[in-house]
Amino acid sequence: MKLLLLLVALAQLAFALDNGLALTPPMGWLSWQRYRCNIDCFNDPDNCISEKLYMRMAQLLVSEGYSKLGYTYVNIDDCWMEMERDPNGTLVADRKRFPHGIKWLADYVHSLGLKLGIYEDFGTFTCGGYPGSMFYLQKDAETFASWGIDMVKLDGCYADISDMDFGYPAMSFFLNQTGRPMLYSCSWPAYVVFNGQVPDYKKIASYCNIWRNYADIQDSWDSVKDIIQFYGNDTGSFSLVAGPGNFNDPDMIIVGDYGLSYDQQQVQMAMWAIMAAPLLMSIDLGNVKPETKRLLQNDGVIRVNQEFHGIQGRRIIKDNTFEVWFKPMSVDAKGGAFAFLNLNDAGGPIQVQMPLSKLGLMEGEGYNVTEGFTGKFIGTLKPHDLINASINPTGVWFGIAYFDC
Amino acid sequence: MKLLLLLVALAQLAFALDNGLALTPPMGWLSWQRYRCNIDCFNDPDNCISEKLYMRMAQLLVSEGYSKLGYTYVNIDDCWMEMERDPNGTLVADRKRFPHGIKWLADYVHSLGLKLGIYEDFGTFTCGGYPGSMFYLQKDAETFASWGIDMVKLDGCYADISDMDFGYPAMSFFLNQTGRPMLYSCSWPAYVVFNGQVPDYKKIASYCNIWRNYADIQDSWDSVKDIIQFYGNDTGSFSLVAGPGNFNDPDMIIVGDYGLSYDQQQVQMAMWAIMAAPLLMSIDLGNVKPETKRLLQNDGVIRVNQEFHGIQGRRIIKDNTFEVWFKPMSVDAKGGAFAFLNLNDAGGPIQVQMPLSKLGLMEGEGYNVTEGFTGKFIGTLKPHDLINASINPTGVWFGIAYFDC
Repeated sequence: MKLLLLLVALAQLAFALDNGLALTPPMGWLSWQRYRCNIDCFNDPDNCISEKLYMRMAQLLVSEGYSKLGYTYVNIDDCWMEMERDPNGTLVADRKRFPHGIKWLADYVHSLGLKLGIYEDFGTFTCGGYPGSMFYLQKDAETFASWGIDMVKLDGCYADISDMDFGYPAMSFFLNQTGRPMLYSCSWPAYVVFNGQVPDYKKIASYCNIWRNYADIQDSWDSVKDIIQFYGNDTGSFSLVAGPGNFNDPDMIIVGDYGLSYDQQQVQMAMWAIMAAPLLMSIDLGNVKPETKRLLQNDGVIRVNQEFHGIQGRRIIKDNTFEVWFKPMSVDAKGGAFAFLNLNDAGGPIQVQMPLSKLGLMEGEGYNVTEGFTGKFIGTLKPHDLINASINPTGVWFGIAYFDC
Repeated sequence: MKLLLLLVALAQLAFALDNGLALTPPMGWLSWQRYRCNIDCFNDPDNCISEKLYMRMAQLLVSEGYSKLGYTYVNIDDCWMEMERDPNGTLVADRKRFPHGIKWLADYVHSLGLKLGIYEDFGTFTCGGYPGSMFYLQKDAETFASWGIDMVKLDGCYADISDMDFGYPAMSFFLNQTGRPMLYSCSWPAYVVFNGQVPDYKKIASYCNIWRNYADIQDSWDSVKDIIQFYGNDTGSFSLVAGPGNFNDPDMIIVGDYGLSYDQQQVQMAMWAIMAAPLLMSIDLGNVKPETKRLLQNDGVIRVNQEFHGIQGRRIIKDNTFEVWFKPMSVDAKGGAFAFLNLNDAGGPIQVQMPLSKLGLMEGEGYNVTEGFTGKFIGTLKPHDLINASINPTGVWFGIAYFDC
């Protein structure tokens, strides 16, 4: 009851999130999709959740050229803890798998010029059954700050949806109170959506930097396609809430894992760029094919994703399995990135002719249009000039249009 | 009524199929999945159903090294005809798209050392709405023979299932009567299955060389996985009917199209080899990545697929998303090919340890085991020795075990 009163009081403060982070979608690496809750360091030492894994991935972010392009977060996910808090109520990293502790790991990651993210859960337990933050929000926020954590993902297993409206803001408050800017990633709206309700995205955006609002991504085209449909439907108009400091999170990048063809990999990269989504790769950075690495490091993708207005692209045409998406890259529709999506899984490429005007690009002087992945200059097109695109099955044509005034 | 009596009489002959073909699963190329019913040669000249397409693919089968490995059939699918038969009731190829006619095309294909397949439908129309063979079975069989056709695929759109029991055997009879050996591919059991019934596979095998018994493949992992499950369930024990001259057909190879990751491509090749399936590629042979081409031309895959006993492999273990498949390569279980399948689309590789004895390989002297794709020698293993395999998500470990007596 006392807790409830506290939570209600905090919620009523309605303070704004002001950590100054996530001005553009965060980029980096996150362990979950690829490494899950693998805690078997005896039989699988290279792939288990351990300080060695995060150190190796941090090194690879630098040595493989990812960090200098903006991929700077190294994010721990579930299963990093001991099953019990210490006698002071402080969370403890698994003593065998993280023998030097999280602070030491954060120092190491910082020494490489990178940032360290961590995972907790708003409920009584994490999804994997480790100690949750419920009733320990302040303590955990302070612990994370003392360790030098740069990003906190707060999951929502083992919690009541009704508590989340109070609890997620409370954690936002406590994170702020530490004085250490920590990017706050909330799974809150995802649990609201799972519960069949439409989240209050404006409220969520006032407390969280990024937030998951749909199912976990799996290593398959089905999963990517499904997430794109959820974002295309945009129920609750969550796209409108995105902007510097606040981004919807359609979940991890799986380009470099096992389940996507090259065309499907292009779809994820182009669409995550257009959706202004966090680019958190969940892959083995030590085993990425050259063509896949080029896609992860693609200049056009990163430029569109990181564009400073932070506007989230939206689906503007849906015709059966053909879709057009557009992301404004200025506030007055003077340019943007677009995707022609072919979601059909049959036959050969489809041919599309489309005038720029259909994308809402109406400046009479015309736009310089480039192909997004290659940077190839297509031409200076006026609003009624046609873009000619060939789009492979389960593939994308990704374009960028600039107005040079 | 007269026709019905004729059909009944023919069915009662119960002649055996004796064209001497398909002693091993046929290999080649088939247009449907990749090129569909694209008849727009004006806008899409390189991809439309036309003699040019089949000539180009025939040339590529030779020049890219496929034909010398056994890929010798060049198979026309739907949409090759004029909408009307000629005044003699003879089928006519579309005059614009096949200006030289099918006989000329067959001669060309034969001149390259290849074989030409064609498509018709048992019903009143083909699935694409072109003239069907119903009431013209003899005429069409004679036409195909006169053109020099080597394989006939007879689809089942626009027909009653109840007629198929008589009609498909009738076409088998008429094809035999021509004196020209033409491999006979029947869609008959697929329509029976769609109708919720279990086909009489023994009867079908007495009239057809190969037969489709499930849905058309699409360019996706979902589709490949779904087909593998149908073959694993083996309802009606259709696997037992396979052997020299007769093979179940799980449909085309899509390795080289757009929808499969490399791991998923390996699954299709290993599984089609183990299922003793026809290897009919439906891809643009002029645009195949080197690693994909190596898979299509893989020695282990082709050797297992073409093994002369023609025994169809079966699923012997199913444990959630992990499956083990085994194809005997002798009549006395002295060797075989096997696949460990990981159908999970999450996380990282799984590690499997399995003794050969679980595959039914019990010869005490042991087996020489090789990794199927690379030919790498694993060792001489006795029945209780373990095979250690790491299997990627939506991936396969493909092995071959030989008993050297």
